[in-house]
Amino acid sequence: MPLIVVGSVAYDGVETPHGKVDRMLGGAATYISLAASYFAPVKIVAIVGEDFAQQDIDLLASRNIGLEGLERVPGKTFFWAGVYSADMNDRTTLATDLNVFAGFDPKLPASYRSAPYLLLGNIQPALQKSVRAQMSAVKFSGGDTMNYWIADYRAELLETIGEWDFLLINDGEARMLSGENNLRRAAAKIMEMGPGTLVIKRGEYGAVLFRRECHFIAPGYLLEDVFDPTGAGDAFAGGFMGYLAGRGIDPAAKGVDFAELRRAVIYGSVMGSFCCEKFGVDRFRTLTRAEIDARYAEFQACTAF
Amino acid sequence: MPLIVVGSVAYDGVETPHGKVDRMLGGAATYISLAASYFAPVKIVAIVGEDFAQQDIDLLASRNIGLEGLERVPGKTFFWAGVYSADMNDRTTLATDLNVFAGFDPKLPASYRSAPYLLLGNIQPALQKSVRAQMSAVKFSGGDTMNYWIADYRAELLETIGEWDFLLINDGEARMLSGENNLRRAAAKIMEMGPGTLVIKRGEYGAVLFRRECHFIAPGYLLEDVFDPTGAGDAFAGGFMGYLAGRGIDPAAKGVDFAELRRAVIYGSVMGSFCCEKFGVDRFRTLTRAEIDARYAEFQACTAF
Repeated sequence: MPLIVVGSVAYDGVETPHGKVDRMLGGAATYISLAASYFAPVKIVAIVGEDFAQQDIDLLASRNIGLEGLERVPGKTFFWAGVYSADMNDRTTLATDLNVFAGFDPKLPASYRSAPYLLLGNIQPALQKSVRAQMSAVKFSGGDTMNYWIADYRAELLETIGEWDFLLINDGEARMLSGENNLRRAAAKIMEMGPGTLVIKRGEYGAVLFRRECHFIAPGYLLEDVFDPTGAGDAFAGGFMGYLAGRGIDPAAKGVDFAELRRAVIYGSVMGSFCCEKFGVDRFRTLTRAEIDARYAEFQACTAF
Repeated sequence: MPLIVVGSVAYDGVETPHGKVDRMLGGAATYISLAASYFAPVKIVAIVGEDFAQQDIDLLASRNIGLEGLERVPGKTFFWAGVYSADMNDRTTLATDLNVFAGFDPKLPASYRSAPYLLLGNIQPALQKSVRAQMSAVKFSGGDTMNYWIADYRAELLETIGEWDFLLINDGEARMLSGENNLRRAAAKIMEMGPGTLVIKRGEYGAVLFRRECHFIAPGYLLEDVFDPTGAGDAFAGGFMGYLAGRGIDPAAKGVDFAELRRAVIYGSVMGSFCCEKFGVDRFRTLTRAEIDARYAEFQACTAF
């Protein structure tokens, strides 16, 4: 079933201990869409400038990502640059030029509005809310947020996520949003805010899926080479939501099969792990579904007991 | 089969966000032995002073821990004090009074020497080596070390672990010992130093078991209340090695069942998780094997996919 992905499409400058790229395709919606495209039909909603290259459009199109909602306006595309620490667990932002992204006011094409799945990348909570309001038959919706909105737009954010079926954030953000250090307590408080399905990402350590009745702990896949962690969290989100949409699973429905949600988390981890293997989106240029399923099987072999 | 445990038996002063205890039973060998005692017959080798209390001897004896090798000498018992950070992921040492531990020169009672399993807590590498040399029929031996020995006693440490079947250290120590940031690469280098079985502990995030041919990733159990993480790593070691000894498994033997090693890691995680639920060793005063097996089952339910 179709999945609508809303968020940034950008250019990134990235430096890691393994190299440096001054300008390459990036942005949350890009990583989410590429990862999800292996599992379900994806339609993107984003804004880019006149400088957005045809080859980048071609890459998205080659993965059958719907681009009717990719708005192109005068000006430059959102640009972000950052440098990673030696162990790649921290990064310093060097530049955030919002450019045309500053005026992003997502309007869903008519053909998008009846889609059942909606994944909102990290943008202003009020915009996330307005997108959801444009959907006529949404079954399972939710998304990501970040420390900035949690700290400075709390009321707006709570109103937005109060309508969501799921929230996907990292452990630091979960602690900040809930005011609880302990992850289980943090999760319980966040689920009281609305989302009945919560995924807390823990970087290289994996992720935990929380539901009111139970939780599922997924360790991170152990990569031998991490070249660039940029976009790994978004690729996780794309794999998770893409799997659910592709299988037509509605986690908000009564009697949903929890085993399918667990599989979605593992597919998320798998997509996040592939993302780190090359700079930027490069791994998605060659990645196949067969490789994804092989890594899923390997994941199982390395974690079952 | 009997397991010999060598290391510190101490008194600890601990402060966490949940409270403060000025003086309570502690030490690596104490935590290891208590945890292992649920799975196998344990015999301890350690040194204490005249101040060592009868009630603490009684606790160890109540878990059927062999105390023939618990040497009692004039002077005071090793004392350590520390305070934990708000999230309990960091701690600051306030006092390290070695006292009688400074003169620790472990001599194994004759009745210990033919035991097949040996677990060496974190003490000077040369002492660890001398203990192993006193064993006549050891099948599976190894232990723990720390940053201090890795940095300042490297040659001695390499000579010691070169004879070991397994090494059990945390991720920071593994990176330090190997000079590799990536965990898989670090593990490969460390296994080249001797130990064919390597467990890298990752605190709240669990542990990874490495063998030359494969690895097993175990996430950490998600506790709702962490009162005091002191001893959790040692309790992990005790659960891991206790399970192997209790089942008579020799991971260094040809054709060993890898599934049993995985179970040993999970029992290690389970014992580490119980350890954090109360201050010091208090959880072991009431813990039952039935509770351990129930948590093992819960662990499986929260991680299988």
